[in-house]
Amino acid sequence: MNIVYKPIGIIHSPFKDIKGMPIQPSRSDGTGGTVEIFPEFVKGLADLEGFSHITLLYYFHKTSGFSLTVTPFLDTRKRGVFSTRAPRRPNPIGLSIVRLTGIEKGVLKIENIDVLDQTPLIDIKPHVPEFDHPPADRIGWLAQAEKNMHIKRSDDRFE
Amino acid sequence: MNIVYKPIGIIHSPFKDIKGMPIQPSRSDGTGGTVEIFPEFVKGLADLEGFSHITLLYYFHKTSGFSLTVTPFLDTRKRGVFSTRAPRRPNPIGLSIVRLTGIEKGVLKIENIDVLDQTPLIDIKPHVPEFDHPPADRIGWLAQAEKNMHIKRSDDRFE
Repeated sequence: MNIVYKPIGIIHSPFKDIKGMPIQPSRSDGTGGTVEIFPEFVKGLADLEGFSHITLLYYFHKTSGFSLTVTPFLDTRKRGVFSTRAPRRPNPIGLSIVRLTGIEKGVLKIENIDVLDQTPLIDIKPHVPEFDHPPADRIGWLAQAEKNMHIKRSDDRFE
Repeated sequence: MNIVYKPIGIIHSPFKDIKGMPIQPSRSDGTGGTVEIFPEFVKGLADLEGFSHITLLYYFHKTSGFSLTVTPFLDTRKRGVFSTRAPRRPNPIGLSIVRLTGIEKGVLKIENIDVLDQTPLIDIKPHVPEFDHPPADRIGWLAQAEKNMHIKRSDDRFE
């Protein structure tokens, strides 16, 4: 069974290479970018401007193949890929929650971007604390990794 | 350009029909379900059990076609589809954050499910407050809709 999606737009960011890119929006220091929505989908952006944050789902277009275990940026041990946000996943799909600062003629202005330039966009969802902020009480291997707050940029391990 | 994904597993839930299903995990009253991961991907589940919550990305397999404006369950007005979580999206992909209560032989036990039985799973990501809980200060049309806390179940509008 194949699930076939088509890009609804393109993400533009200052990051031309994976190496040196922020590893998460929360470690992005506010870097700005834009999301260009293709004309045939612009009508679907109505009412989005009222949300301070949006979830972007996108295609990891620069990753080829996958690994079931990876050494994530925030750790030195191999972990199951589904317990990480690494791009080398069986289905290379990325998720980032970014700040939306404006929409003009089908172009979204966003902040806190951790996405490679020219990344194909699959979907946008409004970010809603009631739906998206469960009271998570355990964060597994990342609890140890939280001391690595100084690690903000990626290297070339997932190219 | 086609983006082609393949299911990595199947979500099992008590919900055989869209009508009557919880509209979000946060309105699901703890309903349990399971996620069966196909054997070739089970190794990727290592270290996931340490997380209390996980993000499921899945294929809305019972929706055909899309609408750029929809009337969401929590409102009576048409809204741009990207400002809603409705399934009739250009790329029918769903996102739910659920509680993970255990993993046994490639089967995840989950709570707070709002997904149809037999839904194809695309990806699992660990839910990490640092990455996923930005301080959202505006939730657009949903601010008005928050008074509709009594609305917990879907109807047949997206079949």
